[in-house]
Amino acid sequence: MSLTNASPADAARAAKSASHVLATLSAEARNDALTAIHAGLTAARDEILAANARDLELARQAAADGKLSASLVSRLDLGKTGKWEDMLKGILDVRDLEDPVGRVTLRTKLDDGLELERVTCPIGVLLIIFEARPEVIANIAALAVKSGNAAILKGGKESTESFVAISTAISNALSQTQVPNDAIQLVTTRESIPQLLALDRDIDLVIPRGSNELVRYIKENTKIPVLGHADGLCSIYLTASADAKLAADVVVDAKTSYPAACNSVETLLVQESALTTVFPAVASALAAKGVELRCDATSKAAALSSEITTNIKDATPEDYDTEFLSLTLAVKTVPDLSAAIAHINTHGSHHTEAILTADQAEAERFMSAVDASGAYWNASTRFADGMRYGFGTEVGISTNKIHSRGPVGLEGLMIYKYKIRGQGHVSAVYGEGEGKKRFKHERLAI
Amino acid sequence: MSLTNASPADAARAAKSASHVLATLSAEARNDALTAIHAGLTAARDEILAANARDLELARQAAADGKLSASLVSRLDLGKTGKWEDMLKGILDVRDLEDPVGRVTLRTKLDDGLELERVTCPIGVLLIIFEARPEVIANIAALAVKSGNAAILKGGKESTESFVAISTAISNALSQTQVPNDAIQLVTTRESIPQLLALDRDIDLVIPRGSNELVRYIKENTKIPVLGHADGLCSIYLTASADAKLAADVVVDAKTSYPAACNSVETLLVQESALTTVFPAVASALAAKGVELRCDATSKAAALSSEITTNIKDATPEDYDTEFLSLTLAVKTVPDLSAAIAHINTHGSHHTEAILTADQAEAERFMSAVDASGAYWNASTRFADGMRYGFGTEVGISTNKIHSRGPVGLEGLMIYKYKIRGQGHVSAVYGEGEGKKRFKHERLAI
Repeated sequence: MSLTNASPADAARAAKSASHVLATLSAEARNDALTAIHAGLTAARDEILAANARDLELARQAAADGKLSASLVSRLDLGKTGKWEDMLKGILDVRDLEDPVGRVTLRTKLDDGLELERVTCPIGVLLIIFEARPEVIANIAALAVKSGNAAILKGGKESTESFVAISTAISNALSQTQVPNDAIQLVTTRESIPQLLALDRDIDLVIPRGSNELVRYIKENTKIPVLGHADGLCSIYLTASADAKLAADVVVDAKTSYPAACNSVETLLVQESALTTVFPAVASALAAKGVELRCDATSKAAALSSEITTNIKDATPEDYDTEFLSLTLAVKTVPDLSAAIAHINTHGSHHTEAILTADQAEAERFMSAVDASGAYWNASTRFADGMRYGFGTEVGISTNKIHSRGPVGLEGLMIYKYKIRGQGHVSAVYGEGEGKKRFKHERLAI
Repeated sequence: MSLTNASPADAARAAKSASHVLATLSAEARNDALTAIHAGLTAARDEILAANARDLELARQAAADGKLSASLVSRLDLGKTGKWEDMLKGILDVRDLEDPVGRVTLRTKLDDGLELERVTCPIGVLLIIFEARPEVIANIAALAVKSGNAAILKGGKESTESFVAISTAISNALSQTQVPNDAIQLVTTRESIPQLLALDRDIDLVIPRGSNELVRYIKENTKIPVLGHADGLCSIYLTASADAKLAADVVVDAKTSYPAACNSVETLLVQESALTTVFPAVASALAAKGVELRCDATSKAAALSSEITTNIKDATPEDYDTEFLSLTLAVKTVPDLSAAIAHINTHGSHHTEAILTADQAEAERFMSAVDASGAYWNASTRFADGMRYGFGTEVGISTNKIHSRGPVGLEGLMIYKYKIRGQGHVSAVYGEGEGKKRFKHERLAI
């Protein structure tokens, strides 16, 4: 890793060159580099925590002056119980994942002695832009090395000292390995972001990790593909056939277990015929947890007639397009499944949607029709997470329509190439006409 | 299909709504629609060919006035031997391909009664912008219906009458099927292109089929992902261990079998030690086919001393960045494999690169190190083609670094979603702490 003073264009060009070397390293060489990073960070623990303490001191001062939020200060703190250990363990976890490079996904015999093979390979150069959490740098460096991608890292200014200390340790560690020094680069100046976002020739993928505002800014200011999501406007459709206790448990979990998470529910769609049967139990459970319900007229009437009176407000049209990220839930009555699907496909953010029903056919229709990366039946939207899916690690959650969708693990950092091994084969002899050869196109075992 | 007079924004919104219905249709319903399209076009043969004749008449006039190229006029002609039949056969070929929708690619038991499934689904709405060839409309409509994607089609103005006749036939055919009318829309006005390219909320993928200039214009003027390639700057690296006849055959095929194709070779890299051994046979075979060689000083000297004197010119630096698309080949001497790889990764367009060598280890290193969608050993770059790869059909050739790369078949029009089927599972009970449940993460058979 290098802490670069080079121009963004030079840094990106150097990263691209390094990516071509990194892409050819064996799994062993890449895993050895992760072992070295782990050892280097372990040895540099005291310096890094001291640097982090200096960042924290400035941040606490800024928070006291009202210039920074307390939650940001909290995210900065590498000394919090378990955080340092988790960061180090994460590197070894990534090392021990199956190698994503060089997997053969298709083999075809085109003709005698002429074989086509599709094999996974790294994408090239990643640009990671993230905010306060300094442990992300180690996590991303590990993912990049494991997947054979070069990475340019740009962290938030509040954690500059921590970043520099961590990157120095990683850089020293990598210099003992086969990973080229320019493969992981740290950029510290904020002014470099627009310049980096313009380098679509040398940077292949941008991964923002931070606020909705950060992601939206990046998506609007680059032609490089962006992997991530700006919004997480998840909905749950509550049908009349749902079990009331099951429904109350799932909606409460989806709304209250971590309201600021992107996979928390923001809109509850209630089937009209469920208003007086299942809905009151759900509304009552939410009220007991202090959730404010922004209701349309019919759902409000249903709540009030069930004597749920606290925290019931009238919904505005904007509420159905709002990611509250707090203990607030928009509630809307819909006549049937089609109306629920239409609402989600118009107002949703393609993140995660759930249906609560006892009817399997209805659930399957919902799951196939909603235009989202996650479609769940009788389960909380909060399961949308790389760790929970069993991916071992998560680069982020994507609401894109191409490449990678939903929680993205190492696979999302890979592309493929086609290799052909021949014996001097030429194309002109193949064709449909007389005297022409035909392709065999035999699918071979992988 | 509708021939739309709606605004581009309304057309895209209607296509998006239709895509949500199309995505839920069974394979049978989509295949039935393809059968209906085939029958409808067959019945409308005379009207369509008459419309095409009117387009041709205007185009021939424009060509006579020097306003259109003769090759464009030729591409317009649906009456050319076999073209109509190929177009119709193509629809049935697409119908008979394996269904790309709903394939399960991952199944994990998260916990008892809680299963995760990853399943392929359509991307949504495609925007296809193409130039003269009117048969493309039938081909793309077939691919869109088969893959469950809605499509907005924008053709070149020279073939408007043909497009309208074909789309009317397809529209009448689809009205008898479950495919919504708005799923395939034809836009005829050129002014609509910039407006369509701005609709990144409703359009998910742009596929340009036409000249480099068209593709470049589109890539530079939209935030929607573009699947395609502007340039095809393919190289072949000729090593000293290559068999001379094999090398001559492959390079001649790669340069001369269809010089205007994107997969034709444009740069020949010659290992220094091959200059006086293998290279003269290759240069001589190329000269015999009328290929002009743009040589650096050392390769020029080698050619001249082998008494190849016709069509040898001095290369300029620009020649190594030029897609000639004609019987012209840039030739450059490189000391070794690393230099060849570095040249390709600097000057190439990530399309298709080949090495000619008897050394397997060298070939494997080349194939893993070149940053291209195709990397070949002892085979012509001209094999880079969906039909030749056995994909049955081809949407285009992509030089992108994410999603789809190389010849793109139906698979490139698909994404996936995650489905979870639970029994009221909530997330808050899982975790690392005491009393928390652990995920099982058992990989299930697909």
